[in-house]
Amino acid sequence: MKFVVLTIFPEMIDPFLGSGMLRLAAERNIIDARALNIRDYAEGKHRPTDDKPYGGGCGMVMKPEPLSRAIGAASEIAPTAKRILLTPQGRPFNQAMAHEFAASDGLIFICGRYEGVDERICQELVDEEVSIGDYVMTGGELAATVIIDAVTRLLPGVLGGDESAAKDSFSGGLLEHAHYTRPYTFEGKSVPDVLMSGNHANIEKWRRKTSLIRTFLKRPDLLEKRAFSREEKDVLTEWCRRIEEIVG
Amino acid sequence: MKFVVLTIFPEMIDPFLGSGMLRLAAERNIIDARALNIRDYAEGKHRPTDDKPYGGGCGMVMKPEPLSRAIGAASEIAPTAKRILLTPQGRPFNQAMAHEFAASDGLIFICGRYEGVDERICQELVDEEVSIGDYVMTGGELAATVIIDAVTRLLPGVLGGDESAAKDSFSGGLLEHAHYTRPYTFEGKSVPDVLMSGNHANIEKWRRKTSLIRTFLKRPDLLEKRAFSREEKDVLTEWCRRIEEIVG
Repeated sequence: MKFVVLTIFPEMIDPFLGSGMLRLAAERNIIDARALNIRDYAEGKHRPTDDKPYGGGCGMVMKPEPLSRAIGAASEIAPTAKRILLTPQGRPFNQAMAHEFAASDGLIFICGRYEGVDERICQELVDEEVSIGDYVMTGGELAATVIIDAVTRLLPGVLGGDESAAKDSFSGGLLEHAHYTRPYTFEGKSVPDVLMSGNHANIEKWRRKTSLIRTFLKRPDLLEKRAFSREEKDVLTEWCRRIEEIVG
Repeated sequence: MKFVVLTIFPEMIDPFLGSGMLRLAAERNIIDARALNIRDYAEGKHRPTDDKPYGGGCGMVMKPEPLSRAIGAASEIAPTAKRILLTPQGRPFNQAMAHEFAASDGLIFICGRYEGVDERICQELVDEEVSIGDYVMTGGELAATVIIDAVTRLLPGVLGGDESAAKDSFSGGLLEHAHYTRPYTFEGKSVPDVLMSGNHANIEKWRRKTSLIRTFLKRPDLLEKRAFSREEKDVLTEWCRRIEEIVG
């Protein structure tokens, strides 16, 4: 899996690629991730990568030629990789898209800066515009690393032999259950009894139940289009009954 | 504005705090951003920060005591700061929340790792759970830097004297208009005529119109609860008319 990040700030990307899980994944030859400096593909003494906008206004716009050449260089490294422009205007990135990207063999990220990127680059040389959320950052660099992290952890052989990736939040469309570890009592609060019972069927049932209730309380939007299992319907019905009792 | 990031990987945070806009904001004494290593608040020879989950299962859970002490240390540095746990279960971060955070005087970020954080920390020592999007990452570190970036660029004196921050995507509830810069012709495509006209009223009108149309095409969800201006209604009505003409 090849990741190429096109940026004018490679020094923001490199420390991430060189630490934690991404370093391990590179050492195991599961990923090949690198940053290319767009400035290296600019011409002239000062190698400018931005210029004033046509039609006036404040801010600067990223010039098309250096970007076009940098995209060309990235495509030589990863010929079949999808070219992604990171912009708040893009398709919102989510876990389903992380799985979709993890099934591809490469991604090229174009990190916008300043006011944005010349529209002709967006129209001609970009396969997809992607956003990591409805907020504005100074550039696409953090967004690229977020996507590289979310995708890499799904690749076979990256996380330890266990099923951690599959069991994470969202993987079943629900938020994850609550976690407890030692000490048994922390600042007067103890661990729920069922977790100490050793009865694995009950523990799993408790976990699925807290998972459903947490989703209902924190992110009801995730439940809107869900096809509920019989067990889930029973949990929700039981809840309704209790609420009706309280309300009287 | 004080930012304190609690993490077991401070080396992932420090390069971001030390480059680009965040470095400039720190040099101008607008922000004071630092990472504290949770491991420094752990006890014992190996200073463990995680332990096995009660009730069994794969993965590890972050221990409550080191986190509790680290949160205490952060609160001494930034006594009035909101304590934020970064988790995919949290309130979705968006531009309105960035403005809300920018009006506060500090933020403490707790970066979860492994399977998650002991539930008693979440319940007792966290003011708010925040998510940067519906996807799973290996830890909260990137999420913390995303929020620090989005908040810092809104602080007075951080971006150049112009109105760039105010005019960005989302600030008026719409996506930003298209940008063009030199050359006039790039790979056979030229800049739209209106941008070359010098007529500023027409240029502004074209920009507002492309902004509305882009939002309609790329993110119709952003328009659902919008109170449209007279001009916006006219643009949309004109569009309807053209579509009806095409459809016949």
